[in-house]
Amino acid sequence: MRIMGIDPGYAITGYCILDYESGRFAVKDYGLVSTSSKSRFPDRLLTIDRSLSEIIARYKPQVMAIEELFFARNTTTAMGTAQARGVAIVAAARRGLPVFEYTPMQVKLAVTGYGKAEKSQVQEMVRRILHLKEIPKPDDVADAVAIAICHAHSGNRKEALAVSGYQ
Amino acid sequence: MRIMGIDPGYAITGYCILDYESGRFAVKDYGLVSTSSKSRFPDRLLTIDRSLSEIIARYKPQVMAIEELFFARNTTTAMGTAQARGVAIVAAARRGLPVFEYTPMQVKLAVTGYGKAEKSQVQEMVRRILHLKEIPKPDDVADAVAIAICHAHSGNRKEALAVSGYQ
Repeated sequence: MRIMGIDPGYAITGYCILDYESGRFAVKDYGLVSTSSKSRFPDRLLTIDRSLSEIIARYKPQVMAIEELFFARNTTTAMGTAQARGVAIVAAARRGLPVFEYTPMQVKLAVTGYGKAEKSQVQEMVRRILHLKEIPKPDDVADAVAIAICHAHSGNRKEALAVSGYQ
Repeated sequence: MRIMGIDPGYAITGYCILDYESGRFAVKDYGLVSTSSKSRFPDRLLTIDRSLSEIIARYKPQVMAIEELFFARNTTTAMGTAQARGVAIVAAARRGLPVFEYTPMQVKLAVTGYGKAEKSQVQEMVRRILHLKEIPKPDDVADAVAIAICHAHSGNRKEALAVSGYQ
């Protein structure tokens, strides 16, 4: 199974392409799509759309895994992130990829075995699970890798979790 | 100038295509893109993406006008609307349309001359300005028409307002 993990944002979108077969991981790629704060917002979204579409075309992942949106307050950042997330989800849907979403607690639990793990613990486990020399940077990339691992570890029992909750 | 007005939503996205030349309006089309609550969220966003892209290809508007996002509370609806808005903006950006955003108060002021007008007053003025027999329904469509009128009435002095505010 080839999984695309995404941590969406209008300034930085982290992505990861992981293969997971018979309990073994192979990292295909990870990195980020960054957009300039000097660009207009529509152009930033367009950069995300085009870049993710290219990555999907290149690696042909079978699923996209993405975090559930949750913000305690309604800020400009929250609204911008939500719009970028919509763009990322459409990039997947356009290519026929099912999209799965997980809460931060599900990601922590799947990666570390503990749903309230610290960010640094999650990142260190990501490094160990994938036998990387260093933790992927910045956090957006590490988060994208973590959610891809989360989907791999819960893939067989989470089909029903495909993005829902919007009536 | 051919203007596309958009009121984005993941369940209903209202749209309007208006021509505005020498102070006169000509309504080309208005209507809605609706998505089923039985569909998965990614498929709903994909429907919005494809439908708006088709409408843009058919009518070739020169600009998109859309309301600024503002929600007092962070709800599932707010997050869903924001994601749909991102999809609508990318549909415009992909075709090279500049995107302009206006606050609800700017729309009310441009349509009725009064920034705190009631929704019913805005809708009645929309009907009169465009010489329609009836107010466009549902509200999402009337709102899309209102924002297109707003852009027409403020088009010459709002170039600088192109979507910003995201650092």
